[in-house]
Amino acid sequence: MNKRSMLLVAILGLVLINGVSATSAFAESDLDAIRDVQIYNRALHVMAMLLIGFGFLMVFVRGYGLSALTATYLMVAVAIPGYFLLKTSGWFGHAATGIEGLVLTEFAAASLLICAGAVLGRLKMWQYMVMALLFLPAYMLNEWILLEGGWGLVAHGAFVDTGGSIVIHAFGALFGLGVAISMTTRRAQDLPVESDATSDRFSLLGSMVLWVFWPSFCAALVVPELVPATAMNVIFALCGSTLLTYFATVLLRRGIDAADIANATLAGGVAIGSTCDRVSLPVAFAIGAVAGFASTFGFAVIQEKLQKGLRLVDTCGVSNLHGIPGLLGGLAALVFVGGIDKGAQGLGIGITVVVALVTGLVAGKILAMTGHRNIPYEDSEEFPG
Amino acid sequence: MNKRSMLLVAILGLVLINGVSATSAFAESDLDAIRDVQIYNRALHVMAMLLIGFGFLMVFVRGYGLSALTATYLMVAVAIPGYFLLKTSGWFGHAATGIEGLVLTEFAAASLLICAGAVLGRLKMWQYMVMALLFLPAYMLNEWILLEGGWGLVAHGAFVDTGGSIVIHAFGALFGLGVAISMTTRRAQDLPVESDATSDRFSLLGSMVLWVFWPSFCAALVVPELVPATAMNVIFALCGSTLLTYFATVLLRRGIDAADIANATLAGGVAIGSTCDRVSLPVAFAIGAVAGFASTFGFAVIQEKLQKGLRLVDTCGVSNLHGIPGLLGGLAALVFVGGIDKGAQGLGIGITVVVALVTGLVAGKILAMTGHRNIPYEDSEEFPG
Amino acid sequence: MNKRSMLLVAILGLVLINGVSATSAFAESDLDAIRDVQIYNRALHVMAMLLIGFGFLMVFVRGYGLSALTATYLMVAVAIPGYFLLKTSGWFGHAATGIEGLVLTEFAAASLLICAGAVLGRLKMWQYMVMALLFLPAYMLNEWILLEGGWGLVAHGAFVDTGGSIVIHAFGALFGLGVAISMTTRRAQDLPVESDATSDRFSLLGSMVLWVFWPSFCAALVVPELVPATAMNVIFALCGSTLLTYFATVLLRRGIDAADIANATLAGGVAIGSTCDRVSLPVAFAIGAVAGFASTFGFAVIQEKLQKGLRLVDTCGVSNLHGIPGLLGGLAALVFVGGIDKGAQGLGIGITVVVALVTGLVAGKILAMTGHRNIPYEDSEEFPG
Repeated sequence: MNKRSMLLVAILGLVLINGVSATSAFAESDLDAIRDVQIYNRALHVMAMLLIGFGFLMVFVRGYGLSALTATYLMVAVAIPGYFLLKTSGWFGHAATGIEGLVLTEFAAASLLICAGAVLGRLKMWQYMVMALLFLPAYMLNEWILLEGGWGLVAHGAFVDTGGSIVIHAFGALFGLGVAISMTTRRAQDLPVESDATSDRFSLLGSMVLWVFWPSFCAALVVPELVPATAMNVIFALCGSTLLTYFATVLLRRGIDAADIANATLAGGVAIGSTCDRVSLPVAFAIGAVAGFASTFGFAVIQEKLQKGLRLVDTCGVSNLHGIPGLLGGLAALVFVGGIDKGAQGLGIGITVVVALVTGLVAGKILAMTGHRNIPYEDSEEFPG
Repeated sequence: MNKRSMLLVAILGLVLINGVSATSAFAESDLDAIRDVQIYNRALHVMAMLLIGFGFLMVFVRGYGLSALTATYLMVAVAIPGYFLLKTSGWFGHAATGIEGLVLTEFAAASLLICAGAVLGRLKMWQYMVMALLFLPAYMLNEWILLEGGWGLVAHGAFVDTGGSIVIHAFGALFGLGVAISMTTRRAQDLPVESDATSDRFSLLGSMVLWVFWPSFCAALVVPELVPATAMNVIFALCGSTLLTYFATVLLRRGIDAADIANATLAGGVAIGSTCDRVSLPVAFAIGAVAGFASTFGFAVIQEKLQKGLRLVDTCGVSNLHGIPGLLGGLAALVFVGGIDKGAQGLGIGITVVVALVTGLVAGKILAMTGHRNIPYEDSEEFPG
Repeated sequence: MNKRSMLLVAILGLVLINGVSATSAFAESDLDAIRDVQIYNRALHVMAMLLIGFGFLMVFVRGYGLSALTATYLMVAVAIPGYFLLKTSGWFGHAATGIEGLVLTEFAAASLLICAGAVLGRLKMWQYMVMALLFLPAYMLNEWILLEGGWGLVAHGAFVDTGGSIVIHAFGALFGLGVAISMTTRRAQDLPVESDATSDRFSLLGSMVLWVFWPSFCAALVVPELVPATAMNVIFALCGSTLLTYFATVLLRRGIDAADIANATLAGGVAIGSTCDRVSLPVAFAIGAVAGFASTFGFAVIQEKLQKGLRLVDTCGVSNLHGIPGLLGGLAALVFVGGIDKGAQGLGIGITVVVALVTGLVAGKILAMTGHRNIPYEDSEEFPG
């Protein structure tokens, strides 16, 4: 081979390598954009859960529906820019950017709405926004400790909680309980929280929106290859909790309770969160079934005792829908995830319980200092129309 | 060219070929994952149709809304794991796996909910679940015969029914008619099925959710290249049925009937199912228009005669929304699909009619043996709250 | 290099080039199909906005909900095939084809539904369809002038309006105002437009569906690379308008007004339309905040004066939700988009105001000639059931 031919071959080679890598680069950046749009799609599903799902689930309180929906709007509108802004401070780990940042923000908003369910109807409208401002740093601190190795307490990547059973659901419920303990008045304890046929139907609408889009919540940040399996686990868990809710409500109440159906059916989604991308379909169904029974038991049996024992009102029963099933979900990871760091998982759960309750109690004290509504659970106090 | 230069060229060639095929393999497996996520997206749309769509469409029965929504939840929760479990038996063709399996399961659940519309309000809550268990094997037998060449009756791949006019809609409606024939009591025949302004608005909500997401139902398993054209055919068919429903209801009733609007507007979606990926936009519009008129005619004129003639009650009029337009859709394929195997198409439709009616009649007999509700169409019998 | 080796190299080269371009071609056509399915997804989100969003937002009128939803169905069913058909005439630029065509059609339908909000409750059902037929050519003329360089008035590509602040929102609102001016009767002026607790909750459902899916409206035709950033701008704008709506309604009304919350919260989505893919998050938030305040000010202060001054009724207050924020959005592009052709932007806005008002006035005259309802805002006139 003479020099000219070697040159020829070399040029040809370079051209071809160029071509190949150009194709490859082209494909990769294009695929990344397409993948981000797919995350965006799931982010919109989560947004539907936040506003329509959580919002209408809370409309079950007769005569407080306009307030519940307005409060949902306002808390989301505070939480989304608020989370981004606080993240840029650098105090809570990396800044939130891009479409992943949006999803993380929505998770924070979901947890906030869960917490609000505990005190629904007993805050003035602007107090929901103040609560959001108190909630966000507490949530972000816990998120940073559990998922980003904050303060070196839980090894980075060791805590298993893809769909947020602990970080989102249990945290929100326990923070809400803390607020409720700090600020439930004697008067509110005596007032029954009532629903009617129309408020129950709206609540079931919210419930169904949550059920339908829950797979996108759990799979929001999962790689494309795992999205279908994750989604199906979530769906099977929801089927399990839906069926067991029915059997439990009939067993425990001697009749069907509309609030059990609207709420405990979703317990499977809460409980499968931690392990949604790591278990098989039958295990997912079983986790959901156990959670559905436990949640219904919570609504039918525990709720009244808890409220009397702690002198609080948990308006939406978030301790039964998000608290118990959330903790169950985090613990299920200890049983079903092979090779899990049990110390980190247990520690993370413990930290969440402590941080949520303590910060919730403090937030409740602060909120209580800013006053109470005259009449709980009534739109008319703030909607004069 | 000496040996060394030939070796060089060969090595260069291998490296490059490697590079090319690596790129290609990378792209292909990645594209498959992305395509599956796109199917997942449509599967969620179908899930919204099942729970929110069918669920709220059935809320039109005044005072039975909580039961209708609870029954929807329970039937879906039985159908999804039930279909997967029965499919693994091997009796009904290939096992259902992956995201395609989820979509096929949802199709079964849709057909079940259609069937339930025929007897809505006259089953106890647990009887809806028993009906689901009786329905699934019948549906899967028919699906296997028509689409997988079961028993060698219909040549595999010959039956044209992409969006399920026959396999899903007509089957569900006729099975439901069978059940209704077997188990409608004299008492239920005398009781009017009534709606009110709020139950009608909820029903229109369900209707609109179905309308909006129907394109994803028909295009759920279609290749990406055909999704837009399929979706637009479905939308044009729905526009056709929506317009003709209005003209027909005014013509036949001398005023607008809310139930006609909530239901017959959707007839285009039912009827375009068989041919949704194979016709042009004007044909799609025409198929929808004919179906919309026929469906409204069914609600306004046929329904009463059918109910008296067969001594049954079809609570939601599924024979008018899914039966007639479904059969029309299956027959439309004979006219508009070039090169169709007319024998197979006709035979498949005939088999569906027979299997659905016979198994429905038997299922109704079994259900009737397990008892009847005291008061039809009343939440209060089972929701003591 | 002898001839044989040159031949070898050439063949090798051709094989490889072939391989490369085959891979590349394969990937490109596949990616195009996948991208179209992603546009399809956003098109379905927009469809949810049209039917469920706009439809239920208009259900706030007590006792006119069934009519509002039926009219929504019918106008969409006229607009979609109508737009396609008119586009094939060639009078309004390129024909509408494929999934982009569907999105453009939906934009026209959105603008039509906005316009209908101005006269809601005062048209007979078939008059909504006639209005749709009068609206479409006017809308398409303006769209062609602003976006396709029609008549050479505005340079092709110079007008900045990605999400339709001007072309869709302001046009629809001003056309609706024109119709309202031409056909509001003295009787309708004296009748109050009233809502109740249930109609308000349905309205908030429509509002939330619009809020949730608005990012897909603005990003519908944006390239994948820009979808996340565009979506986040829209979400930040909506957060801004939601927060400012609350503060403004409390400030201006001394209490919260449900209609303000259902409507003005969305003003950020309207106003960010023109610049949604070109500004930063803080600017998007600010544009939304200003629009939310302005829109609430419109509902609380301007609406009554406008209606008395122009002797019209704007049932849904579309001038406040789509008119003022739409114009604000178009003007915001002058301030925040670097290198914008200010002449073209200003001219386009001016043309829209003139075309919309003039054609709306004419359409109203024509509609008035075809008669008026006996009783405005009552389902019972046309729904005898």
